[in-house]
Order: sequence, then structure tokens, then C-alpha cells
Amino acid sequence: MKNIKLVLEYDGTKYAGWQRQNNAITIQQMLEDSIYRITGENLKVIGSSRTDAGVHARGFVANFKTNSSIPDVKFSAALNSKLPEDIVVIQSSLVSDDFHARYSSSGKTYSYTVLNRFQPAAIDRNYVYHYKGELDIETIREACRYFIGIHDFAAFKNTGSSVKGTVRTISEIEVIKNGDYIKFYITGDGFLYNMVRIMIGTLIEVGIGKIKPEHIEHILLSKDRTNAGKSAPASGLCLEKVYYNA
Amino acid sequence: MKNIKLVLEYDGTKYAGWQRQNNAITIQQMLEDSIYRITGENLKVIGSSRTDAGVHARGFVANFKTNSSIPDVKFSAALNSKLPEDIVVIQSSLVSDDFHARYSSSGKTYSYTVLNRFQPAAIDRNYVYHYKGELDIETIREACRYFIGIHDFAAFKNTGSSVKGTVRTISEIEVIKNGDYIKFYITGDGFLYNMVRIMIGTLIEVGIGKIKPEHIEHILLSKDRTNAGKSAPASGLCLEKVYYNA
Repeated sequence: MKNIKLVLEYDGTKYAGWQRQNNAITIQQMLEDSIYRITGENLKVIGSSRTDAGVHARGFVANFKTNSSIPDVKFSAALNSKLPEDIVVIQSSLVSDDFHARYSSSGKTYSYTVLNRFQPAAIDRNYVYHYKGELDIETIREACRYFIGIHDFAAFKNTGSSVKGTVRTISEIEVIKNGDYIKFYITGDGFLYNMVRIMIGTLIEVGIGKIKPEHIEHILLSKDRTNAGKSAPASGLCLEKVYYNA
Repeated sequence: MKNIKLVLEYDGTKYAGWQRQNNAITIQQMLEDSIYRITGENLKVIGSSRTDAGVHARGFVANFKTNSSIPDVKFSAALNSKLPEDIVVIQSSLVSDDFHARYSSSGKTYSYTVLNRFQPAAIDRNYVYHYKGELDIETIREACRYFIGIHDFAAFKNTGSSVKGTVRTISEIEVIKNGDYIKFYITGDGFLYNMVRIMIGTLIEVGIGKIKPEHIEHILLSKDRTNAGKSAPASGLCLEKVYYNA
């Protein structure tokens, strides 16, 4: 059996997230169906994360074990010929037998895009969070610093998935303003359920002056979800990259 | 009668371009229908350009004359309540009676986005031109310099619209590479039919070594359309900004 690693780009707009479900179309299902069509094998694909409905990815990682004779690097083209146009395999490669898209991961970078103007988005309507209120970008940048480092992120986790512990390390948050667009790049060793979206929702409240930047520290220490902001919408979120130790 | 100027953003994917047609849905028609719904007036909207099917805009300008009592700046919100989600009025304002979205324009900036990788686009599939072949970005930048200045662009014009003369001034071409994306920003006092798309198609041929950068000069001087490259697809094109003298 060969262990094949895939890197995927997808537009999550029309899907109920990554994970297979009974009554909704998901990325995992589309991918497993396409693998069946090219290999005849009914197998299970392992994903690096369980992205929610409407969340996008430019560098989602998946792996599966196959007996197919398709050359490793040819899986991408073969799968793309079966997949719908909003899911694309960017890369396929042979990895060692113990590679696991989720457990082998050492970290991830997510991006989150806010369109901060009065009128809604036309072109990017499925890829941004449209927020009308005036945001103070420098105050937001100041607040980001309190997330950096090793913290218990229990206050930034929605119920819905069971994970071991709530301590995570955020190594970098970049905030780039380009016209009316504010783009966040958040890198960490792991993320709790809805963690990025709650962080962004909280940073929005910082940007309008409702929460003081230094108050982020208190929210973290409280470990109480009700102290953080709302979850920002799925549309603005994109899994950019998943890291693995060489 | 008040003369109202609108700035529009639209996703051109589903439309047969700007200009009203008998058998296809266009931006102009959607806008005129929406104006009718809020004012009861059956009027004609003037557009800054006739964008083709599939071409997008972030700063299209239009104007129309109305007797409506809707306050000038309120037209944007009123129209957005009627327009589909892929067309958004960013701004509305009162302008002098002689303002004409097309004839008063002193210049425009278009962007063109190429996704230069082997695998197609998932997320940006409607907003880029996917080109697989390897492109030499520095050679493309060198070729761009030959377009700058006052030239007869007859070789870079498709038949299909009647315009006065074929001499235009290109003031700036910016080429920005970001990962697999190559984004061109082209600014000029005016553009012939399909001019940007033919310029890009020609620059792609430069990028693969089929046309030498300095040969652009000869193509311009030849005034012969058959010497230039193919028209690049509509999807990569976006009207970014229209300029007017104060």
C-alpha cells in the first residue's frame, strides 16, 4: 500500500465543510468519490482539519492509502479530471507509511479577510466578512500581541469537537491593510474549534473600541467563552498552509 | 433634473457585459431595472466603458439624470436593496449637469490577473486567466516598457466597436508577482476594443520566449492585428478605476 499526500485548494462556499455527513455534500465525500472513480477503491481520506461549512482552503492536506498503480505525482491530474471546478488538487506525492495529515501536522496558517466599508462586496462576497463599522487597525495590531505565545485558549473555543487540552501556541499574527480589505494571517501549532473565528470576532470588538487590547489577556485567563467576542463568519476564513516536520 | 454619478463594483461572471442586449442579461439592464424600481423612471444609464462578458469591475462609473427626490448619497443603498448580490453600488453623488461617465473620463486603470501554475484555480476560477506554461516575469516587465507612452495601438484592437482614432497613451504598467499569481495594472488615457486583453496575450507570448520584448515596438509600428498575440480571456480582466479631471 502506498501512502499518498494531497494538497488541496477549494472554494468552500457550496460545501458543508470537510467532513463526510449523511445529508449534505462535503469536500471529503467529493474527494473519496473521485478516488473511487479513478482507482475503484472505496477508501477513507484523512484530512488535516475539519473545516466548517463555507470555509475555504488554499493548502489543505489530506492523505490516503492505496493499491492503485497510478504514479504518485499523477494523482493530482487524475483527480482533477473527476472533481468539480471548486475543488482542485494542487499536488500529490508519495509519503512515508506513518504520515498522517492530521496527527503529523506541526502547525497551520489560517487567513481571515475582512472587507471594511459601508457597502457589501460584489466580487469577493463569498471570501470575506463584510463589516461596516469603522475599525482602528493599530489598536487591533496591539491586541494581536496578547495572543502570541503559549496560552490556554479555552475562552476561544466553541463546543462541538473533542480535543485534548486547550493550550495552544500562536507564533505569528500578521495584519495587512490593503484599501478596504484587512487580511489576517494567523500561525499556530494547532487550533481549537472555531478558534480563529472567535479570535477575529474579538479583534473586531477591539477595533470598534468595545474591548481594550490589554483585556485580551484577561479573556484568555478567564477561560470563559462568554468573555470573548462572537465567532466571525466562515466566509472570511481560509486554511492557507499546513506544516509538517521534515 | 439631477445628474447622479455612481461607482460600481461587479462580478461579471454571469453577465453578457455592460451594454444592454436583447437576448442576454447585462449590468446596464440590471442597473436600469433597479433605478426604475426605486424611482419609477424609465431612463438610460451612461457607462464609462463597454466591458465584455465575464469582465469584472471594482470602479466602473455610470451616470444618469433623474427627477427623483431620493437624496444623492442615498442612491447607493437604495439601489443595492434592489440589485443582485454580484452588483454593488459603492458610491453615489451629485455631479454637474455636463458630467458624462464616458466622455468626461480622462483615463482608466485596468487590472489583469494570471494564475501561473500547472493546476487550475479553485477559489479564483472566475477571476483569473489560468496559464500553465512557465513565464519569465523579468522579460515580461522589459516588454511592458515598449507600451509606455503615446502609440498607435491599431495592432492591439479587435474589430467590434467604432472609435475615433487608434492612438492612445499608456502611462503606467505595474507587474506584481505574488506566489503563483501575476497581476498587471495598466493605466492609460483610453483603451481600444479588447486592447488590454490583446496586450496581455502578447505579454504571455513574451513570457514564454515566443516574442522578444523589443519586438513589441515592431508590432505597434506594423498596426497589424495579426502580429500581436491572442486576446487573453475575459475572466482575468477588471476595470479598477476611472479618472476624471476635477
